[in-house]
Amino acid sequence: MNKFFILLFSLYCFQLTAQTNDTAVIKQITDEVLLNGKAYSDLRDLCKKVGNRISGSPQAEKAVELMYNKMKGYGFDSVWLQPVMVPRWVRGSKQTEIGKIINENKPYKVNILALGGSVSTPKNGITANVIEVKNFEELKSLGKEKIAGKIVFFNRPMDPTHISTGSAYGGAVNQRGRGATEAAKYGAIGVVVRSMTLAHDEFAHTGAMYYNDSFPKIPACAISSNHADALSRSIKQNNQTQFYFNLNCQNTIDSVLSYNVIGQINGTTKAKEIILVGGHLDSWDVGEGAHDDGAGCVQSIEVLRLFKTLNLKPQRTLRAVLFMNEENGLRGGIKYAELAALNKENHYAAIETDAGGFVPRGFGISDSTVYKNMAAKAYLFRNYGWDKIDLGGGGADIGPLKNNCKALIGYVPDSQRYFDYHHTENDVFEAVNERELHLGAAAIGSLVWLLCND
Amino acid sequence: MNKFFILLFSLYCFQLTAQTNDTAVIKQITDEVLLNGKAYSDLRDLCKKVGNRISGSPQAEKAVELMYNKMKGYGFDSVWLQPVMVPRWVRGSKQTEIGKIINENKPYKVNILALGGSVSTPKNGITANVIEVKNFEELKSLGKEKIAGKIVFFNRPMDPTHISTGSAYGGAVNQRGRGATEAAKYGAIGVVVRSMTLAHDEFAHTGAMYYNDSFPKIPACAISSNHADALSRSIKQNNQTQFYFNLNCQNTIDSVLSYNVIGQINGTTKAKEIILVGGHLDSWDVGEGAHDDGAGCVQSIEVLRLFKTLNLKPQRTLRAVLFMNEENGLRGGIKYAELAALNKENHYAAIETDAGGFVPRGFGISDSTVYKNMAAKAYLFRNYGWDKIDLGGGGADIGPLKNNCKALIGYVPDSQRYFDYHHTENDVFEAVNERELHLGAAAIGSLVWLLCND
Repeated sequence: MNKFFILLFSLYCFQLTAQTNDTAVIKQITDEVLLNGKAYSDLRDLCKKVGNRISGSPQAEKAVELMYNKMKGYGFDSVWLQPVMVPRWVRGSKQTEIGKIINENKPYKVNILALGGSVSTPKNGITANVIEVKNFEELKSLGKEKIAGKIVFFNRPMDPTHISTGSAYGGAVNQRGRGATEAAKYGAIGVVVRSMTLAHDEFAHTGAMYYNDSFPKIPACAISSNHADALSRSIKQNNQTQFYFNLNCQNTIDSVLSYNVIGQINGTTKAKEIILVGGHLDSWDVGEGAHDDGAGCVQSIEVLRLFKTLNLKPQRTLRAVLFMNEENGLRGGIKYAELAALNKENHYAAIETDAGGFVPRGFGISDSTVYKNMAAKAYLFRNYGWDKIDLGGGGADIGPLKNNCKALIGYVPDSQRYFDYHHTENDVFEAVNERELHLGAAAIGSLVWLLCND
Repeated sequence: MNKFFILLFSLYCFQLTAQTNDTAVIKQITDEVLLNGKAYSDLRDLCKKVGNRISGSPQAEKAVELMYNKMKGYGFDSVWLQPVMVPRWVRGSKQTEIGKIINENKPYKVNILALGGSVSTPKNGITANVIEVKNFEELKSLGKEKIAGKIVFFNRPMDPTHISTGSAYGGAVNQRGRGATEAAKYGAIGVVVRSMTLAHDEFAHTGAMYYNDSFPKIPACAISSNHADALSRSIKQNNQTQFYFNLNCQNTIDSVLSYNVIGQINGTTKAKEIILVGGHLDSWDVGEGAHDDGAGCVQSIEVLRLFKTLNLKPQRTLRAVLFMNEENGLRGGIKYAELAALNKENHYAAIETDAGGFVPRGFGISDSTVYKNMAAKAYLFRNYGWDKIDLGGGGADIGPLKNNCKALIGYVPDSQRYFDYHHTENDVFEAVNERELHLGAAAIGSLVWLLCND
């Protein structure tokens, strides 16, 4: 009994010490970010010195160089570029990217943006009668007879009753991604899609759209939510309402050399097990890609900088990965996973931060054991506000790692304002709050600390 | 045993039904706010039709009328005005409210705002050597010899390492509230105080300042955080740096007739027990008082509107109270509590919403029994994100009710951006996000629902 008691007591003390240490380190990490965080100034550089940076563009190249140099400057153990071939799509001149509602020959100019990957319209644009649908079932029920020769207007709004705006997005985004292909099946000659947002404003939101080679490729654009409402009203009032739009996109070039940018701090006792933190370096070709996903990139770098600056020695190896081409191809994520498998790398956890630089709420964790361990320690995060740990999570760029990574983890900041900025001209540095961005880095940093010792 | 079992089973079923009902009602409340919420458009009216509304001003009068009519329009069981005498302080012309750093006769214009309640400077302003201090202890140690005839510059920033920016504010605000009196003790002739904010920008933040009749009343202003840094640098570089400022405030008039605005929905089975939800209708005399506290006012009204629209019959009586004069006197809160005591009203709970229209995080509850009951039901709020229930809480306006109210409750939205706007020109309607404001109303509404049946 005595020995047993001593053992129990020792275990208790050990646990207590670990817990006290965790508490202290989480406080250290958070204080450092709030007092001396570099993520915000790094983001300013990315947004203002580079700006938007679609895959394969000269700006994407410049972003690779800037972030490589940042990581070098922070003195990580190693920093390297991982080559990856990416597609390049070019919007063409924004001056002639124009949309108009035409009701009884009266044209009314509206805000549009070509969807990413769209083909061009003929040089003088397309004018045609427009037919509004809410979903693919409605499209199908109308059939060729009603659709052929027309422009299809997809106008199913994101459902505002979802608390997670990401879920609302998930319920609406097929209109953007597959609308052109679905409409082309029935002979439509163009597509206009309500912007993916819960805001009522005049920003058009672009985003990825994919053709299916079995059907004609027809031009597709997004229209701002306010103008979508106007178009819908016009159609209700006059079912002969026409829509005009002009896009001058260039055909997508398939293969341009680009890079994932990677920095690493070597682990101590479990150096072969990698904890990855990553975001994506490419953005759409409007705004400055501040929330999407400049924020995730600078947070990923900041996490490693925190360990370096605070001289925290991680047992496992930490890696910041800035993926290229998340927006329109995912080539960076796929290439990273391919090479990880080829090199027999062992990933313990991969955390993706690609939901904006907003105030942290928690994490979604794919692996049930890691989830259980972290959920048991969530109380350490409670006073910081990032203690919502859920089972299930991941991200686009880390998805391909699935079979070679114990836990895929999605960082979950508050989602309410994300789709106010997503893929628009107003996703700029000024839309990011310094403390919210920095607390996000602290949240991820503190989870990484726990994962290091898990 | 059998009877006991049946009793247990009945209790279990009853609990289960109550819980299912709570879940359904919380969803109903939240959906209604997100689909048809009126708080945002009410706030637009308050901000754009009235604007800022310091106690005793014609705008405050207009705000009383507007909000009274709103509540009447929503058809609450009763709506009334509760007279209260309030002080009136007038800033005077903003054109001549000017501050300058003068280093070797070179003047550099900076952004200032008279603190609320300040006396005027002489007509041509004050110019004097300026001495920087961090706190009252430093002031005391410098003493009359170093302070007399000078302008004292209080420059202790809010501590960024607090996660709750309210706590950081609490640790710095005595400089603003009592700085002038403390400095006057040692013969200072004026006071300039670093703005109460964690942002680095050029907005000066006003706020309440109180004199002590035992000491001379010297003029006091706030300076923007960036300009506070500039002034500090100037002093470091040249300790003969002077500061100039000119205020043209009018002496405070003590008693102007104004009103608390109150709306009520009568309870069913426990009608004599009141659940109060309130914010304050007055604001400072800059910006539009959108976050502080237009947001709280429109949320309070929205909570009652939700019950009315959804035909939810509260057991206890619900009351929305828009208090007058929170910012510089608290006369509304004091008067309300006085009359409640006089009329032997029984308040079961009073919830104050005065921390901005940001995304909800939870509640602080003063009473340990109510706290325990609500904390036990916090899981119902988890997926909505307002499940952080803490023991301890309240608010300025409900404070005076303390002895006649079972539970004082502070509504706690996310605090990160609050002091970017607090008491500044940029606390305007556009700074409030519709979903964040509406989710706040849903959070309070769902807590009120649980309190109704507690």
